[in-house]
Amino acid sequence: MSNFPELSEYRDFMIELARRSGEFITPHFGNPGLAVEMKGDASPVTAADRGAEELMRDMIAKKFPAHGIVGEEFGNERADAEWVWVLDPIDGTKSFISGVPLWGTLIALKHRGEPVLGAIHQPVLGQLMVGDGVETMLNGRAVRVRECARIEEATVLTSDPLNVSKYQNGPAYDELLAKARLARTWGDCYGYLLLAGGWADVMLDPIMNPWDIQALIPVVRGAGGVITDWRGGDPVNADSIIAAGPGLHAQVVRMVNGK
Amino acid sequence: MSNFPELSEYRDFMIELARRSGEFITPHFGNPGLAVEMKGDASPVTAADRGAEELMRDMIAKKFPAHGIVGEEFGNERADAEWVWVLDPIDGTKSFISGVPLWGTLIALKHRGEPVLGAIHQPVLGQLMVGDGVETMLNGRAVRVRECARIEEATVLTSDPLNVSKYQNGPAYDELLAKARLARTWGDCYGYLLLAGGWADVMLDPIMNPWDIQALIPVVRGAGGVITDWRGGDPVNADSIIAAGPGLHAQVVRMVNGK
Repeated sequence: MSNFPELSEYRDFMIELARRSGEFITPHFGNPGLAVEMKGDASPVTAADRGAEELMRDMIAKKFPAHGIVGEEFGNERADAEWVWVLDPIDGTKSFISGVPLWGTLIALKHRGEPVLGAIHQPVLGQLMVGDGVETMLNGRAVRVRECARIEEATVLTSDPLNVSKYQNGPAYDELLAKARLARTWGDCYGYLLLAGGWADVMLDPIMNPWDIQALIPVVRGAGGVITDWRGGDPVNADSIIAAGPGLHAQVVRMVNGK
Repeated sequence: MSNFPELSEYRDFMIELARRSGEFITPHFGNPGLAVEMKGDASPVTAADRGAEELMRDMIAKKFPAHGIVGEEFGNERADAEWVWVLDPIDGTKSFISGVPLWGTLIALKHRGEPVLGAIHQPVLGQLMVGDGVETMLNGRAVRVRECARIEEATVLTSDPLNVSKYQNGPAYDELLAKARLARTWGDCYGYLLLAGGWADVMLDPIMNPWDIQALIPVVRGAGGVITDWRGGDPVNADSIIAAGPGLHAQVVRMVNGK
């Protein structure tokens, strides 16, 4: 990605977005009295989601007024700009409101439609993972996906066990789980952090939104992983994701599609 | 539990055991290079499990030489003493070695076979939950189970989705999950902390060991919850657990037993 000299400045700014949004979100976590509102799509939202996205939008508008912004909570601004920031202030709001730290802030930067920088930030655990498709760093140290070529030795993760049977090929997925060494719903963006960091081998999500996916692509690829949609195609405009190390990805795509 | 004047001293000592074992365990967490050994029962163990249990055993032997000790890693000493400490240094070792903070240290104190004090400690998140069957505190603040009387509104947790179909009534359990508002494998002792803290409504484990269960009993009861084995019986010597609020527990026991 060194063909864009401005990327180094954008990366520093992305880290600053993560730091500031994390400071805003953290005090709301673990509060059983936090007010939860259900959105039109039945997904929950809180003052932490909304406040963190507003804060990041203000920072971007002030620093890079020509850039576009796409966010989960407040929609699109200049979405056809050359550079577009994609924000999901709390990916894993169900974990967040359940007192479980398996959520994170997703920040992506797209150049002419391609995600070139991505961050997964877990502020409570103090973990910031930043990838550019070539290299992925966790708190400044390079990470790699784990070598694993057999489902029988793999840790397989997904966000919601019921989503799979509802939206994709349930029986084939159940067979995958039964073969895996370990199957868990350590999900949402934290599952991709675990994959890229070398702690898990496969992460599947049969239902994804555009703002969920963009940051994951440079993070997973930078760690040497493969990330596609459910059928093995381009993930950028997908509505489902399969991510895994190169030794397992094609096999998992075949399995969950019943081939 | 005020009929034992010594309990106040034992509670302070339990908190000290948690603090010291947590300091020992925490630096080992999140290290992908941590050596993992498989035990005879195919459960993993690390230097963190062993070192933390040794440390707690030494502290107990020095302070209360007449007390018994039962631990996951180093067996029983004076298990028929009037007072017996039950230790599980890392409950959720699979989470621990996967970089996921949903594990904890379990410490129980039994008096003539009955658990009278229990602690669940998550040192990375800085959460210490201590219960005596009457009151349960999280970091010094009283917690209560959440009011919930309908499975359709419940968050239902279990440690391992495959264990259920393997060891108990799989189809009835699948039906329970399909009805729940949210179903997740946020498991091991952290699931009971979430239940007692008012973040989740049902926690099920079809397979348990004696050292896993003892601390949970005074913690769940002190928060107003109900804890039994899979059939609704006494949990102290059980090999399975169903824990829930009083509005849901009997219903869940009926459901998972196919009644």
